[in-house]
Amino acid sequence: MRALVYHGSGQRSWDEVPDPVLADEFDAIVGIDAVTICGTDLHILKGDVPEVTPGRILGHEAVGTVEAVGSAVRSVQPGDRVLISCINGCGTCPPCREGRYGQCRRGGGWVLGHLIDGVQAEYARVPFADLSLYKLAPTISDEAAVMLADILPTSYEVGVLAGGVRPGDSVVVVGAGPIGLAAVMTARLYSPSHIIVVDLVPRRLDAAKTLGADIVIRNGPDGEDPVSLVRDLTGGLGADVAIEAVGVPETFELCTDLVAAGGHVANVGVHGRAATLHLESLWIKDVTITTGLVDTSSTARLLQLVAGHQLDPSVLVTQTFPLDQMMTAYDVFADAAESGALKVVCTK
Amino acid sequence: MRALVYHGSGQRSWDEVPDPVLADEFDAIVGIDAVTICGTDLHILKGDVPEVTPGRILGHEAVGTVEAVGSAVRSVQPGDRVLISCINGCGTCPPCREGRYGQCRRGGGWVLGHLIDGVQAEYARVPFADLSLYKLAPTISDEAAVMLADILPTSYEVGVLAGGVRPGDSVVVVGAGPIGLAAVMTARLYSPSHIIVVDLVPRRLDAAKTLGADIVIRNGPDGEDPVSLVRDLTGGLGADVAIEAVGVPETFELCTDLVAAGGHVANVGVHGRAATLHLESLWIKDVTITTGLVDTSSTARLLQLVAGHQLDPSVLVTQTFPLDQMMTAYDVFADAAESGALKVVCTK
Amino acid sequence: MRALVYHGSGQRSWDEVPDPVLADEFDAIVGIDAVTICGTDLHILKGDVPEVTPGRILGHEAVGTVEAVGSAVRSVQPGDRVLISCINGCGTCPPCREGRYGQCRRGGGWVLGHLIDGVQAEYARVPFADLSLYKLAPTISDEAAVMLADILPTSYEVGVLAGGVRPGDSVVVVGAGPIGLAAVMTARLYSPSHIIVVDLVPRRLDAAKTLGADIVIRNGPDGEDPVSLVRDLTGGLGADVAIEAVGVPETFELCTDLVAAGGHVANVGVHGRAATLHLESLWIKDVTITTGLVDTSSTARLLQLVAGHQLDPSVLVTQTFPLDQMMTAYDVFADAAESGALKVVCTK
Amino acid sequence: MRALVYHGSGQRSWDEVPDPVLADEFDAIVGIDAVTICGTDLHILKGDVPEVTPGRILGHEAVGTVEAVGSAVRSVQPGDRVLISCINGCGTCPPCREGRYGQCRRGGGWVLGHLIDGVQAEYARVPFADLSLYKLAPTISDEAAVMLADILPTSYEVGVLAGGVRPGDSVVVVGAGPIGLAAVMTARLYSPSHIIVVDLVPRRLDAAKTLGADIVIRNGPDGEDPVSLVRDLTGGLGADVAIEAVGVPETFELCTDLVAAGGHVANVGVHGRAATLHLESLWIKDVTITTGLVDTSSTARLLQLVAGHQLDPSVLVTQTFPLDQMMTAYDVFADAAESGALKVVCTK
Repeated sequence: MRALVYHGSGQRSWDEVPDPVLADEFDAIVGIDAVTICGTDLHILKGDVPEVTPGRILGHEAVGTVEAVGSAVRSVQPGDRVLISCINGCGTCPPCREGRYGQCRRGGGWVLGHLIDGVQAEYARVPFADLSLYKLAPTISDEAAVMLADILPTSYEVGVLAGGVRPGDSVVVVGAGPIGLAAVMTARLYSPSHIIVVDLVPRRLDAAKTLGADIVIRNGPDGEDPVSLVRDLTGGLGADVAIEAVGVPETFELCTDLVAAGGHVANVGVHGRAATLHLESLWIKDVTITTGLVDTSSTARLLQLVAGHQLDPSVLVTQTFPLDQMMTAYDVFADAAESGALKVVCTK
Repeated sequence: MRALVYHGSGQRSWDEVPDPVLADEFDAIVGIDAVTICGTDLHILKGDVPEVTPGRILGHEAVGTVEAVGSAVRSVQPGDRVLISCINGCGTCPPCREGRYGQCRRGGGWVLGHLIDGVQAEYARVPFADLSLYKLAPTISDEAAVMLADILPTSYEVGVLAGGVRPGDSVVVVGAGPIGLAAVMTARLYSPSHIIVVDLVPRRLDAAKTLGADIVIRNGPDGEDPVSLVRDLTGGLGADVAIEAVGVPETFELCTDLVAAGGHVANVGVHGRAATLHLESLWIKDVTITTGLVDTSSTARLLQLVAGHQLDPSVLVTQTFPLDQMMTAYDVFADAAESGALKVVCTK
Repeated sequence: MRALVYHGSGQRSWDEVPDPVLADEFDAIVGIDAVTICGTDLHILKGDVPEVTPGRILGHEAVGTVEAVGSAVRSVQPGDRVLISCINGCGTCPPCREGRYGQCRRGGGWVLGHLIDGVQAEYARVPFADLSLYKLAPTISDEAAVMLADILPTSYEVGVLAGGVRPGDSVVVVGAGPIGLAAVMTARLYSPSHIIVVDLVPRRLDAAKTLGADIVIRNGPDGEDPVSLVRDLTGGLGADVAIEAVGVPETFELCTDLVAAGGHVANVGVHGRAATLHLESLWIKDVTITTGLVDTSSTARLLQLVAGHQLDPSVLVTQTFPLDQMMTAYDVFADAAESGALKVVCTK
Repeated sequence: MRALVYHGSGQRSWDEVPDPVLADEFDAIVGIDAVTICGTDLHILKGDVPEVTPGRILGHEAVGTVEAVGSAVRSVQPGDRVLISCINGCGTCPPCREGRYGQCRRGGGWVLGHLIDGVQAEYARVPFADLSLYKLAPTISDEAAVMLADILPTSYEVGVLAGGVRPGDSVVVVGAGPIGLAAVMTARLYSPSHIIVVDLVPRRLDAAKTLGADIVIRNGPDGEDPVSLVRDLTGGLGADVAIEAVGVPETFELCTDLVAAGGHVANVGVHGRAATLHLESLWIKDVTITTGLVDTSSTARLLQLVAGHQLDPSVLVTQTFPLDQMMTAYDVFADAAESGALKVVCTK
């Protein structure tokens, strides 16, 4: 089969590789119908994720058709159209028993396109199929479904639910990339009074408005001052919930400035460097700060909301390509500043 | 009357000052029977709390007898023996309606010995008496009760409750001063499997053991390594809850090293400097970090536990003095390294 | 002034009575601008609420203008346009400290038009004004605001919040009177997948559809079977949340039949008779049943949602009358079957 | 092998039957080392549980040694000493993903000695071994461990956790049989102020006192009045949490009388008849009522507390017999009034 293979820092190619085979009785082999690229894949390509070794097939977000299942798989069978979750859970270790599949201690967690071969390929081996594959209703499009492999559950669980968004809250989302925009979409499920989005890029702020942001703030050197604007909008109090969706120290620190006393900072961004935590002002503020990897414990619920037309994540897809143009798709996604790409999907 | 007055950085004296009078219909005047000194009072004396201006009577932890009440006071009357809480709440502003009296926006919060005259005196004016004074059962001693003015609710609310301690948890308390020891006492109410206490000073660790710590770790240059010890004790996982009870960046950062994936860091310490938050490792760990000023919303419940002999906070009192030896009491408390002082109480 | 006075079972008149005066320093006198009638007022008129004695002015839902305040009132002043909440809270007794104002032990709870004179009058005395009056933004109409005196917080707190409605849930509301319809409106704030409404009256079901019900079921002798319909709609599981909004044993028992294993029955209805609880089938079903009087702890948040156009409760108002036609308004409200009345508002 | 076989209403015998064999790759075969009898087994023998058909081996509470495991079992292997939980969970169906194994929809839940052969035998087949078996530390005795098969997690999860017991609460447990006594033991983990136990039998009340009850009340025709006593003990308020541990309408209704406004009734008892729910008084009381089958999601945590000597459930064992005297053990357990039996254990 063909697959997108990582060959070391800066090196990727669309290679002929052996087909995957069942390696464990909990495995499934899935033929890929639609797959997308994550910002994390770009980090891997920069060499920032040392656990990913050359020769690894990348990708952890896909929709496909089950080809074969191991003998212990009970919930899917060949022919089923399924969502492949970015997180695999064994279901029996202590964190999995609490639904924290992202912290699985028996070979699950984020492994696809990371510790084992991923889904940017014609076929993929998916471990722990019962807890990682979701049968799709025919009314859900591939484009919508593939957004639920990672970014919607991530923004919902690690941003909206961990942040404890409630009706009437003021919510600020820092970062209007795909994760931040998905946070806007899923925060709306809780009817906050205001969703305020902060980003450097006007085009992304326009997208945020389209998806339901009430107020957008362009920050940056010649931009607006989010702290004073949010303070004005909230009677001087700050935001009830600040969702960090970038992953650099500056945006995290901005969130701790934007949050009200008694509020929540929900960190969703993937960070490579330490941030400064201003405990000299925060110690007295009754602030809750949360971090986390997605568990995809909300996936079934989100699929139901998509099926009921309460969420339409397909609007995050800006470009589509045939699967064998994966290399071009990467180019377009990597050059988002020019291409305006949010999520790029390759379909069979 | 006589009172302990702050006269600027490093300067305090036991002065003759005017008696306090009712200034508001929600006020009470309380004759002080027992009063203690807080680490925060020492910070004020160093000049670290600029809102405290020369001439201020210090102190926010006392037990006394009501002398007079304003016309709107309903729950206490002259002659009642009462605990004076360190926090005053108006009861009607938005945070007070949620029981977050520490964040009161109408003149409450921590004001005694801070923004208004305090309780290290023969008499004190207490605002919002209905929400700040607690009638004391005769079976509760002054020494026990005065520990509930600040340190027990602080350690319980900001440490144990915010940290979400549950039966069977591993709890680490960093810092075995009065607040840390009170955290040990109140964490035990939830039957954790292990309470581990980390401090530099052997005498404080001995006190921790006496109060219920299961394991004590002396850290510091020639000390033990808390991270590896806690890891060993928890099967490599780390502590479910790490309570910071010191207030310097190093101990906060230690807590973020000690906590398990999925765990809580509850910051109780008062900080004067920023800490480093290692988001490059924490972003994926499902960690919750909380900060907060005490609300004293748990005071009634803690009093009930003292009355029922389930808590005996009087053991934290290491020295007592007559009220007019307040200056000596300060010397002894400030020289804890030599005197071994935990809490020093002055009684009428 | 003129007021609607209860004169014993079945007897009411629009009488000349003395103007109310400040009786306590926490009181306010409010000139009534708009007032509505509650189903509970009809119960009182039937003689079902023995604590209401002849001579009592009825009514607990109004909007008005502050005329005078007691000396301890801080948050409102003469001239302020305010919502009068149906619940008064002292703010300092144990339940009030937890925001459970409905259970106030010092003279609050539901007292207006019940234990003291109410608001169906030209003027009313409101106890504990700081916790019972809410200043109104000019953009909020009287009709919208008066719905927040009782029915919106009741349906939201006792139905939606106690029931724990979450995005993606199946919610069934039994009873499409004003409270049930308000439950539909406020349940939508949490984006459930389905809101199913059950009632006997087609016109009320039409109203439910207009307000956001996804599915309506007409039950009754010649009607549909809600249990089998809800089962079909939920894959055989039942509803995640069943909200009882009628107040008779049959509808409560229906809710316990409709709820899924692991689900919630939130009783909002006011009951006069015992119901049968089928523990022989429920003991194993992981069901949570809640009851409660409203606390109006959500009023500020609901007002914010109305101001932000996320809720428009004025649609529940079906008829308006001048204040001095209160007797006619009662007739119309009492004859809802004929008049189609949901909420009837009298304005100055 | 030999096993205790149900032969229809009132009929049981200790029979020679075929050894169990692995039927599924998730199964384990366990050699029984210690087994106990549940009140439910007596119900079955009365013919009250129609799903149990003649020929069924009874029993769902045992400790044993793994003999063989199916190919998909990962967490235990032959030779491991294990606790057999009374609940089996598939781990992948929707309720199992939320840790609600008692509601498993794929063949789990309570099946042992109910829908499939049980553990009152020399060997047993245990489905879903990874989620149903717990390796035992050598320091935990068989007698202590076997109490964690059912009664401790049942009383803890369905009573103490569902009831939301907090430090300082007043807790009343109605019924001092094994489940009620286990509720006393596990409620103590949360340091309530008072644990009050109500039962008809003085001997059981003595046991309750030994295990930590603060106050015991003998009710019944010539007994004391629990309602007035609990009211006196709680300043007229009632209990914060009332745990029903009998399973008849009268005791459930007593719990709803004993509970305070704002309190919880946690039903643990297995009921065969409907109860009367006095909504005419409860509707206004802010009461939460919960029911549920145990999930055994707390088993690992309880085992840790036993290992740490914070719980010693072996004190509930009043008689032990060799395994081949199972018939006698049933006689003794069934005649608890005479024998004083709480839990009877048969060991290999």
